[in-house]
Amino acid sequence: MIKNDLFLRALKGETVDRPPVWMMRQAGRYLPEFMELKKKYDFFTRCKTPELASEITVQPIRRYGMDAAILFSDILVIPQAMNVEVEMKPDFGPYLPNPIRDRKSLDQVIIPDVYEELGYVMDAIKATKEKLNDEVPLIGFAGSPWTILCYMVQGQGSKNFDKAKEFCFSQPILAHELLTKITLTTIAYLKAKVKAGVNAVQIFDSWGGMLSPTDYQEFSWRYINQIIEALKDEVPVIAFGKGCWFALDVMAKSNASALGVDWTCSPRNARYLTGGNITLQGNFDPSRLLSPPADIKKMVHQMINEFGKDKYIVNLGHGILPNIPLENAQAFIEAVKEYKV
Amino acid sequence: MIKNDLFLRALKGETVDRPPVWMMRQAGRYLPEFMELKKKYDFFTRCKTPELASEITVQPIRRYGMDAAILFSDILVIPQAMNVEVEMKPDFGPYLPNPIRDRKSLDQVIIPDVYEELGYVMDAIKATKEKLNDEVPLIGFAGSPWTILCYMVQGQGSKNFDKAKEFCFSQPILAHELLTKITLTTIAYLKAKVKAGVNAVQIFDSWGGMLSPTDYQEFSWRYINQIIEALKDEVPVIAFGKGCWFALDVMAKSNASALGVDWTCSPRNARYLTGGNITLQGNFDPSRLLSPPADIKKMVHQMINEFGKDKYIVNLGHGILPNIPLENAQAFIEAVKEYKV
Repeated sequence: MIKNDLFLRALKGETVDRPPVWMMRQAGRYLPEFMELKKKYDFFTRCKTPELASEITVQPIRRYGMDAAILFSDILVIPQAMNVEVEMKPDFGPYLPNPIRDRKSLDQVIIPDVYEELGYVMDAIKATKEKLNDEVPLIGFAGSPWTILCYMVQGQGSKNFDKAKEFCFSQPILAHELLTKITLTTIAYLKAKVKAGVNAVQIFDSWGGMLSPTDYQEFSWRYINQIIEALKDEVPVIAFGKGCWFALDVMAKSNASALGVDWTCSPRNARYLTGGNITLQGNFDPSRLLSPPADIKKMVHQMINEFGKDKYIVNLGHGILPNIPLENAQAFIEAVKEYKV
Repeated sequence: MIKNDLFLRALKGETVDRPPVWMMRQAGRYLPEFMELKKKYDFFTRCKTPELASEITVQPIRRYGMDAAILFSDILVIPQAMNVEVEMKPDFGPYLPNPIRDRKSLDQVIIPDVYEELGYVMDAIKATKEKLNDEVPLIGFAGSPWTILCYMVQGQGSKNFDKAKEFCFSQPILAHELLTKITLTTIAYLKAKVKAGVNAVQIFDSWGGMLSPTDYQEFSWRYINQIIEALKDEVPVIAFGKGCWFALDVMAKSNASALGVDWTCSPRNARYLTGGNITLQGNFDPSRLLSPPADIKKMVHQMINEFGKDKYIVNLGHGILPNIPLENAQAFIEAVKEYKV
């Protein structure tokens, strides 16, 4: 049994004394102990070495005592496992030298045996579980099929993922075939993660907000929902769509245990759009962690008051930025722990 | 008098047979006649030579007959006039080698005499008005103070304008001083444009959607609203905030003649959030112009039906992309002209 089960109880919608807190990308570049490992090992070495991935995962828990850990990994291990080359270029980000844009390249994309191709993730989970010693729950994650398609087709990060959208709008049959392959792989991947020991999973739809409400339903949400349906009886699922405020009403009717929201959606709007019954997670502007610590604490308390302490998980509205001072991250976590109704 | 006054009538909320149509960035890289001039003259030469700027402005009108022209220029002529160096680097975009991040650099920023520093814009307007021969109205534009600050502080384009936000959140007094300087310059600039002959102005808040609803009010909307108040008796003002759905309720209560909306906001949501009385402009996903022309026409007709033909200006939800085929842009414009209730 997990000793601090605040996060799991919030996912079930139970009444709590204070909401749980964790931060997207909490195992990241703002931590000096992370930067030390980053200097020594390249990106995929860190992902693929269970000893490193588990160490990085628990670093923020040791320093700040968040209420949940999230496995250090990357959403792009999925395309890699599907036979699509992914490089992580310093000062550039992900680079996929052979993007998927036609029938021929699509046919090269496989649905892998996830234990064979991604066994290192399961090993990292087991190593992390040992280190966590059941103190806090461990979250596993995957990108949404749409977001993975964005990288597979665009070949790199982008302001508007125009090539990915062009692919979907001009070759929708191929696009849906690719999305289906990614969905099936992701379901198998997340099920394996659950078997290896994660206590909840989060689906990151980082680029869902690039789509119109109609296109979002067609190219993103239906696939996320398939994943939720496949996982819901095994583990709580959190769906986070950055910029997807327009779909929150539909998402709230799904079997997701919680929905992530970004900071453009006020707590009041988020509760209104989701009907008030589902657990919400978010939504502090990551840049607002650059305010003075005393201001951060005030803003966090106000945010909790506006969301309400129940059915709520305190988080940022996106990943923590590399340039956040340690004491500011600390103020964020402490503010939640000090919260009194 | 303007012969085709459909656009101006829609701004006044009058009943029309069909809505007017234009496209953001319609004088742009998708046009071969534009690309020919782009080959010969660099970016600021095109902006600063009235003969070139006016020629580029009327190119799309000649080819497609939109219901309004928008002066070819750039929002970054404002920082340039304010004594902040701006370069336009090929394959990179805007680059400001001396970004504003402290008291010392802020003190270098001037409120210029717009006739002295930006006289070439007024000359371009006069040259354009002659070429247009009162066939269609001419729109002038400026960036929102927040969006201009983003470039002045960040020094270049960015995914999240983290440095611009850091400046605002850690040095709010300096930020508001800079925003005030930009606002005063923009008001003088737009008033000069009106005197030179533009029939309406649009304020582009391209990066407003990076801010939380609270921060948007503090760092962006209050300055946009100052511009609207200063201009409203001289010319209709359109306010377009990309990603600013969360502020539409407040914006709708202003003296703007119309609000631009992006494609993440369904027509129904846009009408709901703005209360149903103000003219709206938008919001076709620019990437959806990559669909086959017959599909484009169907989607445009559906969009008009959903917004309603009155108090509505057909447009994209952001600028047209460089890779749009000519016949697809044509299908977009034709669909509106063929529209029957």
